[in-house]
Amino acid sequence: MTEKPRGVRDFKAEEMAKRNYVLNRIREVYISYGYPEIETPAFEPLSVLTAKSSGGEEVSKQIFKFKDYGNRLLGLRFDLTVPMARFVAENPQLPKPFKRSQIGRVWRYEEPQAGRFREFWQADVDAVGSSEVESDVEPLTAVVEALKALGFKDLVVKLNNRKLLEEIAQSCGIKENYTDLFRIIDKLEKQGEDYVKKELADKGFKNTEKLLEIIKAEGKPEDILKRIEKVVNNKESLERLKDFVKLAKSFGIYDYLVLDLSLARGLDYYTEIVYEVKIKGAKVGSVAGGGRYDNLIGLYGKEKVPAVGLSIGVERILEIMNSLNMFKSGSSIKALVIPVGETLEKGIQIAKNLRDKGIKTDLDLLKRGISKNLNYANALNIPFAVIIGEKELKAGKVTLRDMKSGEQELISESKVLERLK
Amino acid sequence: MTEKPRGVRDFKAEEMAKRNYVLNRIREVYISYGYPEIETPAFEPLSVLTAKSSGGEEVSKQIFKFKDYGNRLLGLRFDLTVPMARFVAENPQLPKPFKRSQIGRVWRYEEPQAGRFREFWQADVDAVGSSEVESDVEPLTAVVEALKALGFKDLVVKLNNRKLLEEIAQSCGIKENYTDLFRIIDKLEKQGEDYVKKELADKGFKNTEKLLEIIKAEGKPEDILKRIEKVVNNKESLERLKDFVKLAKSFGIYDYLVLDLSLARGLDYYTEIVYEVKIKGAKVGSVAGGGRYDNLIGLYGKEKVPAVGLSIGVERILEIMNSLNMFKSGSSIKALVIPVGETLEKGIQIAKNLRDKGIKTDLDLLKRGISKNLNYANALNIPFAVIIGEKELKAGKVTLRDMKSGEQELISESKVLERLK
Repeated sequence: MTEKPRGVRDFKAEEMAKRNYVLNRIREVYISYGYPEIETPAFEPLSVLTAKSSGGEEVSKQIFKFKDYGNRLLGLRFDLTVPMARFVAENPQLPKPFKRSQIGRVWRYEEPQAGRFREFWQADVDAVGSSEVESDVEPLTAVVEALKALGFKDLVVKLNNRKLLEEIAQSCGIKENYTDLFRIIDKLEKQGEDYVKKELADKGFKNTEKLLEIIKAEGKPEDILKRIEKVVNNKESLERLKDFVKLAKSFGIYDYLVLDLSLARGLDYYTEIVYEVKIKGAKVGSVAGGGRYDNLIGLYGKEKVPAVGLSIGVERILEIMNSLNMFKSGSSIKALVIPVGETLEKGIQIAKNLRDKGIKTDLDLLKRGISKNLNYANALNIPFAVIIGEKELKAGKVTLRDMKSGEQELISESKVLERLK
Repeated sequence: MTEKPRGVRDFKAEEMAKRNYVLNRIREVYISYGYPEIETPAFEPLSVLTAKSSGGEEVSKQIFKFKDYGNRLLGLRFDLTVPMARFVAENPQLPKPFKRSQIGRVWRYEEPQAGRFREFWQADVDAVGSSEVESDVEPLTAVVEALKALGFKDLVVKLNNRKLLEEIAQSCGIKENYTDLFRIIDKLEKQGEDYVKKELADKGFKNTEKLLEIIKAEGKPEDILKRIEKVVNNKESLERLKDFVKLAKSFGIYDYLVLDLSLARGLDYYTEIVYEVKIKGAKVGSVAGGGRYDNLIGLYGKEKVPAVGLSIGVERILEIMNSLNMFKSGSSIKALVIPVGETLEKGIQIAKNLRDKGIKTDLDLLKRGISKNLNYANALNIPFAVIIGEKELKAGKVTLRDMKSGEQELISESKVLERLK
């Protein structure tokens, strides 16, 4: 007996319909924000994927690696940001800003567990070529609106600036190893303060009490920023957050903002603003996240190109929408045509007429009797059966059966068309 | 300078919009025929892909192979039929017939050439679990209707039955090595008779004159079948073609049918009916093809399950539609909002209002002057610019510029909404 590989999934019709619905809604909103979709290959040169600080060491260990028959080293993409950075570097003639969305699957060799797979979908939106604060806010707005379009109302956007975190650390006397510092501090919400303190101490960080005190700040973003003004020397990154908050009002997402000074994000390529979007009350962590990565594209080309963007974690969205019953249930197929006796050709024609009218229609292909066909319709949640037996054929009519109520009517074909429209 | 891997492609926004349009039209028609979409992983256990007669030797040599970190041998899928067969074998509880469509990318290590890539898209439709002739015709009908929905009118469906070809060969005294025979004969149209004769002789086939004479038959399907009746002993496969032609009338695709007794198809897994769809006048070969493969699913599970289906070659469809100008051109983005001076916040709000109304709207993220913004709009084929300068802000209006005519109007924001709707 052959099975699919470990950690990856098949999607049956009903799951796939949900997946397509979610991806299409996100796609529409991204495009309405001026971020049309592009696509890149499933695999990249391995050197692209493992370029210094592109994904960080942890991700490098999760890449599915292989060689083509010309002995070139390749790897399956682990996110959509790195391939896009390569794409932009390879096409320096692209008009800037280059705004793009990209929706597709990525692969990481992770230990399979609830909600974690070796093949999963991401939905990215990025603005490339601008350093202005409005380019920080716009892709985030597109993500928020996409989530709202899917029916999520209670959103929280956690916001920070990695440079500000650096400034704060500096003011607390921490001068180096920010990569480790950020990685540990990022776990504050998930693992708690004691865990973070211990980890920091283990890595040799000192004077972390004051740092933790500052970054635990809660309140309105403007108020927190005001309080920190006295702490940091270089105020640039602070001012940037202030501008961000101000423009967020115009973009209509201010109400979702929470300034979280412990937010740093896992991937190493982020340079400045970082953000995460959460669904209030949902048990999973963030459903989208991203930030500014001004150095990534420069790794692959001649020019340094500023960029910022986010990724929606499609698997988590589907998980939450399923658990909250946010999908309309039922089959997308409206009717099953059942020819009984010498009526196959008529049955085929009826199915054709229904399909021509845009009604999604199944047709018996097994010459089954009525009861087996009705069982099949039930198994597939098809709401109507259109039965054409020899009696019906003679009368120039068909039997329409409502699968839920079990009611049957002998009516004309045109009536059926009307009824199922 | 880093480049994408050899033989694979990036798709820019305009190309991707066309690709999505084509895939969505096909998807809709497949579903309207009662074939909802499923999806399987990008990679399968290598043993699935190389199972005896799954794809044939030639395809086996083109598989991208790799190991996961648990040392399991995997391969990128080279078509969508083999993964589906594995899926059906792994899920014996699926109600039958199992009708499914699947649209996605596949990978083969081929020498890159015009129209041939190492990553390409297929759009499959299959009926699994029925041996009835109507299950041969229905998926073909879905493909024909999908192509018609894309705007193709002049279609030719080439049809054959591999078993009938065997019968004919037998009657001509050829008793073995049908795999080679079919492979060579399949080249009749492309390579010509002399080539085929030589190849057959090289492989040791004798008495091929009579065989070639018979399979070159042209005319109405019924007439050819009538003539062959005297040639073959076992008439089962002939009768099946007759039934096929008869039902094709009910399904509404009879007019496209051409019986081509030389058609055998490349993949080894086909057992009986095979067909190919061509666009009249297009230079490329077939745009879709398939057939019955009753032994494939049995390779992966306990049961033998009959199955039949086709695959649309998405790359060829796109190539033809591009060359025949079958796409509406232009950007999907309708307007670029250009804030000039201290009007950014107002500009953001105008963009938001347009987007909320479903108008696909770009917004300047670079604080550029007007002329640079207009150049950008031109480069991206955006048809309208909405300019909000300080003069406009004061007047409570905006300037709407038609990018094609260059005409500008100072109008209210609500007028703009109306105009761009």
